[in-house]
Amino acid sequence: MGAEDMTPGVVRPGGRTARVRAAVLRAAGDALAERGFAELDLADIARRAEVGKTTVYRRWGTVTALVADLLTDMADQSLPRTESGTLLGDLRANARLVRRTLTDPRQGALFKAVIAAATCDGRTAEALHRFYDVRIREWAPCVGQAIDRGEVPEGTDTHEVIRAVSAPLYYRLLAGGGPLDETVADRAAEAAAAAARAGVFVRAEGPGE
Amino acid sequence: MGAEDMTPGVVRPGGRTARVRAAVLRAAGDALAERGFAELDLADIARRAEVGKTTVYRRWGTVTALVADLLTDMADQSLPRTESGTLLGDLRANARLVRRTLTDPRQGALFKAVIAAATCDGRTAEALHRFYDVRIREWAPCVGQAIDRGEVPEGTDTHEVIRAVSAPLYYRLLAGGGPLDETVADRAAEAAAAAARAGVFVRAEGPGE
Repeated sequence: MGAEDMTPGVVRPGGRTARVRAAVLRAAGDALAERGFAELDLADIARRAEVGKTTVYRRWGTVTALVADLLTDMADQSLPRTESGTLLGDLRANARLVRRTLTDPRQGALFKAVIAAATCDGRTAEALHRFYDVRIREWAPCVGQAIDRGEVPEGTDTHEVIRAVSAPLYYRLLAGGGPLDETVADRAAEAAAAAARAGVFVRAEGPGE
Repeated sequence: MGAEDMTPGVVRPGGRTARVRAAVLRAAGDALAERGFAELDLADIARRAEVGKTTVYRRWGTVTALVADLLTDMADQSLPRTESGTLLGDLRANARLVRRTLTDPRQGALFKAVIAAATCDGRTAEALHRFYDVRIREWAPCVGQAIDRGEVPEGTDTHEVIRAVSAPLYYRLLAGGGPLDETVADRAAEAAAAAARAGVFVRAEGPGE
């Protein structure tokens, strides 16, 4: 075991356990992107990762658990938000990041495979929702800052604004409507910012609502 | 053959061929909603529809062709748009219709199954995109009318406004974020209307754009 394993607070220590996990998750992501969820097989992933089959079965047990762990790792590894000083600038940075992910050949295929699996597998759906929750929590503070600056009204649902940025990009990926280019990403950011400024995302409150 | 077969211009004549198609498409939709795309089987669908296996193989040939025909039929059968006299009213009617479809147990399961299939099957993806194109063309004129009334700027991409209404509903169906209730539908309509009014969906034009 390397010295880095003793260092507290290190997210991805370089020990054998961490190296095995990294190799298996990379192999699982490759297999998902290449062949989809239905074709996933723990023995095949162990072979790709050059890791003992027993290790993979003991540690993850099922394909569903492995994909859930992959999504946890993707959330941990995902880029921190950038800050531009304006709501539109921040949302545009978010939209462009989502677009880059979805149009990357490996990542795009991986997301399509996981979304497809989530439509018919409750545990994969939960893992996917947790992934989006992490991403949304990472970016929501930029809407909080816009509230503080007076750019959008008090009471705005910060998470819904971030979801509104992603939604048109996922819709284009899955339901069509032309290429998923940077113009589409920028428009998604502008639409979410305009709606937020207009108060559309202010949470309903009070009796009867 | 019934007399209605001779009537020109009748979209769904009551003849045997039309009855067989209706029975097979209903059976295919049921099977898709219950068991997903991967489990679809022409022989099973023929049994469910109480139609000869040979008829189904001769007429559709493959599961993919049958699902494409189902989507064509769903587009033909889908409700015409309602007109409220305002952009927000029209978009809200559209959003509520999409929400009702996606939260209906049979229809919602059917859409999830087809979206999942489209992620890994190009012909199903094309058929799904054609379905959305038909729906979008049906509703886009309400945005054209809003342009004529001066509610939204000239040059607004009418199709993109309609896609913007559906996107958050599909995102919630597939990526999570809470229940797909009427509040969510109304907010999707309000967000699209606010962004359209702000000119977000005006097409880029001119040199260098």
